[in-house]
Amino acid sequence: MRMVDLIEKKRDGAELTTEEIRFFIEQYTNGSIPDYQVSALLMAIYFQDMSDRERADLTLAMVESGDQIDLSGIEGIKVDKHSTGGVGDTTTLVLGPLVAACGVPVAKMSGRGLGHTGGTIDKLEAIEGFHVELTTEQFTKQVNEMKLAVIGQSGNLTPADKKLYALRDVTGTVNSIPLIASSIMSKKIAAGADAIVLDVKTGEGAFMKTVEDARALATAMVQIGNNVGRQTMAIISDMSQPLGFAIGNSLEVKEAIDTLRGKGPEDLTELCMVLGSQMVVVGGKAKDLEEARGMLLEVIENGSAIEILKNFIEGQGGNPAVVDSPELLPQAQYTFEVPSKESGYISFIEADEIGTAAMILGAGRATKESEIDLAVGIVLHKKVGDAVKEGESLATIHANTQNVEQVMEILYKYIEFSKEPTKAPKLIEEIITH
Amino acid sequence: MRMVDLIEKKRDGAELTTEEIRFFIEQYTNGSIPDYQVSALLMAIYFQDMSDRERADLTLAMVESGDQIDLSGIEGIKVDKHSTGGVGDTTTLVLGPLVAACGVPVAKMSGRGLGHTGGTIDKLEAIEGFHVELTTEQFTKQVNEMKLAVIGQSGNLTPADKKLYALRDVTGTVNSIPLIASSIMSKKIAAGADAIVLDVKTGEGAFMKTVEDARALATAMVQIGNNVGRQTMAIISDMSQPLGFAIGNSLEVKEAIDTLRGKGPEDLTELCMVLGSQMVVVGGKAKDLEEARGMLLEVIENGSAIEILKNFIEGQGGNPAVVDSPELLPQAQYTFEVPSKESGYISFIEADEIGTAAMILGAGRATKESEIDLAVGIVLHKKVGDAVKEGESLATIHANTQNVEQVMEILYKYIEFSKEPTKAPKLIEEIITH
Repeated sequence: MRMVDLIEKKRDGAELTTEEIRFFIEQYTNGSIPDYQVSALLMAIYFQDMSDRERADLTLAMVESGDQIDLSGIEGIKVDKHSTGGVGDTTTLVLGPLVAACGVPVAKMSGRGLGHTGGTIDKLEAIEGFHVELTTEQFTKQVNEMKLAVIGQSGNLTPADKKLYALRDVTGTVNSIPLIASSIMSKKIAAGADAIVLDVKTGEGAFMKTVEDARALATAMVQIGNNVGRQTMAIISDMSQPLGFAIGNSLEVKEAIDTLRGKGPEDLTELCMVLGSQMVVVGGKAKDLEEARGMLLEVIENGSAIEILKNFIEGQGGNPAVVDSPELLPQAQYTFEVPSKESGYISFIEADEIGTAAMILGAGRATKESEIDLAVGIVLHKKVGDAVKEGESLATIHANTQNVEQVMEILYKYIEFSKEPTKAPKLIEEIITH
Repeated sequence: MRMVDLIEKKRDGAELTTEEIRFFIEQYTNGSIPDYQVSALLMAIYFQDMSDRERADLTLAMVESGDQIDLSGIEGIKVDKHSTGGVGDTTTLVLGPLVAACGVPVAKMSGRGLGHTGGTIDKLEAIEGFHVELTTEQFTKQVNEMKLAVIGQSGNLTPADKKLYALRDVTGTVNSIPLIASSIMSKKIAAGADAIVLDVKTGEGAFMKTVEDARALATAMVQIGNNVGRQTMAIISDMSQPLGFAIGNSLEVKEAIDTLRGKGPEDLTELCMVLGSQMVVVGGKAKDLEEARGMLLEVIENGSAIEILKNFIEGQGGNPAVVDSPELLPQAQYTFEVPSKESGYISFIEADEIGTAAMILGAGRATKESEIDLAVGIVLHKKVGDAVKEGESLATIHANTQNVEQVMEILYKYIEFSKEPTKAPKLIEEIITH
């Protein structure tokens, strides 16, 4: 088999066989096929696309390129959730305890964030003593006992995807549906998921700016999952404005706790109900989304979700007292209100820019080496559709510096007003189950 | 400027600026841009094409990537000819003396062949004593005095093209009109041509199998030439069967001499008249193709073309006696006739396969290191459209071995017959002047 023949075949619009895709991924991972042939193939894929079978084959070949996490010691259907990323997305912190309380085992491998705020692990580390260095035995035991555990990324998972991603990044081949979909799905499958729920974001603050693009990606991932024997569902949700109110690590932990008590922001709560219902269904604990939603409401009301959260924190060395006393989380030295300069209705809050403002405060990493300040961030008080009076606070800035002029400027610039009443954007654009 | 931005721009169908193209070629030649980004750009060009301006810019950037031959010491318009390659193509040997006799200076840089038979230099070296190692002064002097000289490739011409070609060969990006056209034109321009005449072959024995593809390539090259200030014309000619009768180095030299005496094969003679007319016109020695053709006929009839050939050979150290006594050229030890097994009409002679048969005899190089046997080859006696009686010889094999069974088999297999009368293929498909 020669790589140049594979390139020409794809270039001319034909389908690559399972063996050809496996050959290319194996030989690229072990260094036998050079980057310059792979980038040509990737660009040919960009133009010619891949069939459903090719996408499934590519995903599995990437899964098989490295280690695979063995979760067979955990009872039940292991459900994982993936979000394509946005600003102020606290869903993972809410969903873990929520679906665990419904009996779905959540064995989560998570990462640190690069961008506006930290990743799930960074946020959890805002809790004193919490750590993610568990052995496989400890991890398995904790999930079996309290249905929820989070560990850091370990092992050599999907090395083919890592190499491909680095190459795509510098060769104009990031933005290809089959390549994005197989990359995400291979990581979830290698991490041991039996079933997968996907939250594909759309809008200004998301990678997929239009609903059409988001739908194509979501459908591609659901089809890959189902074609490789992992039940997969997806939703398309709005990321034109930040999700919830909090953007920042401690602030989001507190918001997650509030949400698990039934006192969270409306949009974050609703998104967690929709995603959580899917997780409970694919986890085999409810026959349909409606039944699942009823179970989620119940574990919030009867406090069992909060109970799971406490046990989970304690199980991983953290101080569970933060759940009842969120002021134990790292607190910023200063807070500043952002009084509105006009009266009217909020018409737009540009998610990306608000995220950047949080990063300037220190909530996120610009590079892998940056240190995160877990205490700082922004808490919005108004969202799109809300009425505002002049002088009312639009947001609170939590900072460890008194120099917040630049952040203040960004907030004034990217929280936009209208004299006419406005409407909140539609939160859930679509639910995709096959 | 970042290469990844150029890749994305081309991928999305936009035009690259002159500066962007120059940046990419300069930085690739000096090793600052890696192969894997260039192959992605090449594949994007494959799908998105290049505008006329981009093609001209790419050609000039490649010319400027290395040395350029300075032919300013030669008086008159220096005309070069390029053929996209075929089997038994002896036109360069005929055209040099022919147009030189009409007063057009021919300062030819030529190469050794890889494939069915040798290149122009290999063929000329069949003449005892002939050599192509001339200094620039000797080269200039010879062209000024006798209007014709040939030297071997020297200097670091178009290093960007060499690097790009090697990369295209292994990344499925050879077959792209803007890339082929700019590659050919950059080499001609770097070699000092003021004006260029192109012979684009089409048919089974050619790189461009269809007339449509050949037309696209010819038009692309003519437009590049004219856009960068080099008057350029092209023809599209048939290469479904070998050109002329002879395939082999000495054999083709003899055929060229015959043709310059007005006694050559009909198709080779006509092709040389058409290409020669264009060369005389772009060389500024005739006002139109008709006048040019008259001049060519005259220099054949009055013997001045043959005279130029003798002077040229002598000027480069060769024995001019071969012109009157072609038996002085290397002769093969054995000859074998190929008697026809049937009566009928020749319907097809597959050029590529006949070329392969000549290579098996030793007439060509399979690799750069192979030695060529200048004496051996094949002389056809019949062409498509000819009537043949059983037992008549189809061809003569000139060999330095008695074991010619395989060659014989190829000839029988790929010279095809019809019971019905057949017609010779159209030799000149099209003439493209702008």
